[in-house]
Order: sequence, then C-alpha cells, then structure tokens
Amino acid sequence: MDNEKYLKKIIIDKVIAGELVETEDVVIDESRINIYLNGTKTISMMCIPKDQDAHAIGFLMSENVIVSIDDVKEIRIENDGLDIYVDAIIDEKSLKNLYKEKTLTSGCGGGITGNITGSVQVPFNQVSMFIKPEVISREVKIFYAESELYELTGCVHKAMLYLEDGSTISAEDIGRHNAIDKVVGKCKLQKLDTTKSVLFVSGRLSSEMVVKAVMHKIPIVVSRTAATHLGVTTANTHGITLIGFARGKRMNVYTHAGRIDG
Amino acid sequence: MDNEKYLKKIIIDKVIAGELVETEDVVIDESRINIYLNGTKTISMMCIPKDQDAHAIGFLMSENVIVSIDDVKEIRIENDGLDIYVDAIIDEKSLKNLYKEKTLTSGCGGGITGNITGSVQVPFNQVSMFIKPEVISREVKIFYAESELYELTGCVHKAMLYLEDGSTISAEDIGRHNAIDKVVGKCKLQKLDTTKSVLFVSGRLSSEMVVKAVMHKIPIVVSRTAATHLGVTTANTHGITLIGFARGKRMNVYTHAGRIDG
Repeated sequence: MDNEKYLKKIIIDKVIAGELVETEDVVIDESRINIYLNGTKTISMMCIPKDQDAHAIGFLMSENVIVSIDDVKEIRIENDGLDIYVDAIIDEKSLKNLYKEKTLTSGCGGGITGNITGSVQVPFNQVSMFIKPEVISREVKIFYAESELYELTGCVHKAMLYLEDGSTISAEDIGRHNAIDKVVGKCKLQKLDTTKSVLFVSGRLSSEMVVKAVMHKIPIVVSRTAATHLGVTTANTHGITLIGFARGKRMNVYTHAGRIDG
Repeated sequence: MDNEKYLKKIIIDKVIAGELVETEDVVIDESRINIYLNGTKTISMMCIPKDQDAHAIGFLMSENVIVSIDDVKEIRIENDGLDIYVDAIIDEKSLKNLYKEKTLTSGCGGGITGNITGSVQVPFNQVSMFIKPEVISREVKIFYAESELYELTGCVHKAMLYLEDGSTISAEDIGRHNAIDKVVGKCKLQKLDTTKSVLFVSGRLSSEMVVKAVMHKIPIVVSRTAATHLGVTTANTHGITLIGFARGKRMNVYTHAGRIDG
C-alpha cells in the first residue's frame, strides 16, 4: 500500500476495563516540509509529507505568489521528501504580502486573508453552473467512503474536487487547508480546469477555506460540517455557493443557491 | 445568554426532499483580533472574539514572549473587542523568534514549533501526579456535555483544564489552538496552578497542541480523537502523558503511562 510510509507503528498502553494493556498502534506521520522558491527558503509547514509538489504549488497559487501554472519552470523534491524546490515566475507583491502581516487563522493559512483583503483583487465568481442536490449527496457519501488514511489513523482531513466531467481528484492531510492546497495543486499540475468544479472538504468552512476557493475560482464548496459567519459572508461577497451540513439528502445552502438545480 | 453575541443569524436555503426551503440559521462569529504588545501591533488572529484577554495572554505565554503572568502590567480591550493591548515585560528573543521563521502548523500556531525547537529550553516534565482512568472517562463525558457554542453552531473547539482540586476551567474557539490558549490564559489571569492539571481538548493531538502543554508545564493531555506521530514523540521527549481516543471507558495512553493509576 502506497500510504504505508505515512503511518508510524508505535507501542502504546490501552486502557481496557480499567487496566493498562500494552499494544501496537498506528499513528499518522507529521513532518515539517520546507518550500524553497527560486532557491530561497520561503516557508515551512507541518503536514503529511505526501503529494509535496502539489502541496507547494497549490499553496503558492492559493497565495497568488504563483499566478499561473505555466509560470512554473521546475519542481524538485529532495531531502527524503522534506525539501521542495520550486523555480517559477512569481508575483513579488504577493510574496511580500505573505510575510507582511502575520495572521493566524483558525485552521491556519498564514497570509491568505492578508492577500485577499490586501493586494489581490479577485472578481466576483459569475460562473454559470448547475448541480443537483442528489449529486452532492452522492459525492459526499463517496468522499467519506474512500479515505484510507482517515480510516487507519482518524487523524486526517480530506479535500476532493468534483470536475465538470464527473471525475474526482482527492488529497488528504492533517490540516484541512493543506488538503485543499494539495488537491488544487494536483489539478493545476495536470492542467485540469477547476472553474466548473465542486470542492468537497471534511473540515469546517471558516473564512480561509472559502478564500482558497475564491482564489482558485472554484464556484461551489461543500462540507458535511458547519460554516463560520465570515466564511458565509466571504462566499457571498465573492460569488461562491457555500454548502454546509451536507448529510444524507439534506444540506444547508448558505449562499448563491442559484447554482443548485433543486 | 452571554454567548448570544457570538452567534449570527442569517437566512439560508435548506435542501429538504430535493427542494430549496428558505429558513433562518445561526452561525458562529469569526473575527480578526489584533494583539498590541507594549503599543506595537504584534499579531492578528482569526477567532471568536470572546475571552480576548485570556486569549492574548495564553498565546503570548505559549510562545514564551511573556514568561510569567507577574510580568503583565495592563490589559485593555478596545475597538469593540477586536484590539487587545498588553503592556508587559517581554522576552525579546522569543518575540523575534515569533517572526523569524514562518511555519504553518496543521492547526496553526505560527512560530510555536520554532520557539520550542529554537530559543526556548523546556525541562522534561517530571511532575509526580496520578489520575484514575475512570476520572478521565467521567471528565471527557462532562467536557462534551457542556459545550453551548458547539451545540448551537457545530463549529467550535473546546479546551478544559481539570485542576488539582477537581475544579475545571473551559474555553471555546473556532481554532483548537486558540481554545487552549484561552483556557490557559484564564488560569494564568486567575493565578491558578496548572502544573498538576489535565488538559482536555476536542481536537486532534498534533505537535503544536502538545507543545502548548509543554510550555505551560501541563503534565497530562487528553483528547477523544487521534494523535500524530510528532505529537506522540514531542510528548515523549518532554515528559507529557498523552492520551487519545478517550471514549467511554477506553483510551489510548501514548506516552508516560506512569501517571495513570490503573
């Protein structure tokens, strides 16, 4: 199994019927990866060191540091997967903004809120696209049925892009923002169009999750769990259809319900 | 209800039986607060603007920027709760470290991993303390039974400190690291001793959660959910008893089970 290398076997004590019982257990890897941009160390992040190339590209594009995938010249993964070297044409203003204001978001994301409220002007998402509620319900079910690392460790978030042709791309990470960066990065690397896609996430819809959809022009975002007020207002302002509590046949459409073909 | 002001009423569309039905819903507030340290803006964070004084103090002490609560001279909350002014004697080296390396952790926490691996030397936690598994099980149950904002919005994390005398202090936030900072800050402001306490958290035990316990000399950390490998190794290295999957009468004791009176 490809995921085996991200699992660590350890000996723990389980409490069973009030007694400590020594047993083997499996936990998820959590490592610090470093992103080097044009030879300079730009940022470090705690994550599962998997799909690092997609993670780096997705993150840098989420932050508008890289504007187009065509601006990426080379990606190299070194130091046993922990150092990612990206050579690319970059947006200097967005790179500076990444460092300018240190904002800690609820699920992390660093300068992101800075970039959307600061230098980056993102147009209202006017994409015309329709999806039936039953398709969303079906895809949420599939989304949760297929999460191997979660099943093995209970310690990961997942993100999935449902593309216009009905195909899906997924990624997992300990951080919900990382999972989104990874799945978007995977699409970008494969030059897949995300402008008519639906982003499914396992985590809550706080503002920085919505901001990532805004930056990547993803018109619809779905979660099985809740949204924050700033998540809702950000989606409303930027033309994103935001859906929470998608469970069974029910769901809450917080914003721009016009894309729901009910 | 005191929590009312952190709830925002909005009109949404619920999908019920395939149809969109307009209805009122409640979501949690998510705001950007700014911490000013000795007059200078130091950091911003996305959070529920509640218990801001405790949040600021807990965060700054988690980062070792403020070493002792006795070093705090004044705390003022202004601008409708969004600006927190802290006047205190600070550790300049830790403050610089906060900015030096930008590390995005899985649930955020900024420079934290930097501070523990960098300038701050934290002794191994050797505190002698014993707790019965049934006490942990009982407290986990109470912990989840009493979370009003979660019940109303499904969008918050909670942290609770169970103190030596059996009393508890709790805090909630959209971010699990914020919830820990808030509850620790509350104890510090009340000059309560946390060196023989148990920290209960609703989120996963990734490294930065454990680091906060290390920094505040909290010997035992409990969650109903999973730990990462780095969370486990950090706890092991620093003498923290780390307990995950505490559900019903069962739990996984990842490290330093000697404090469990089984």
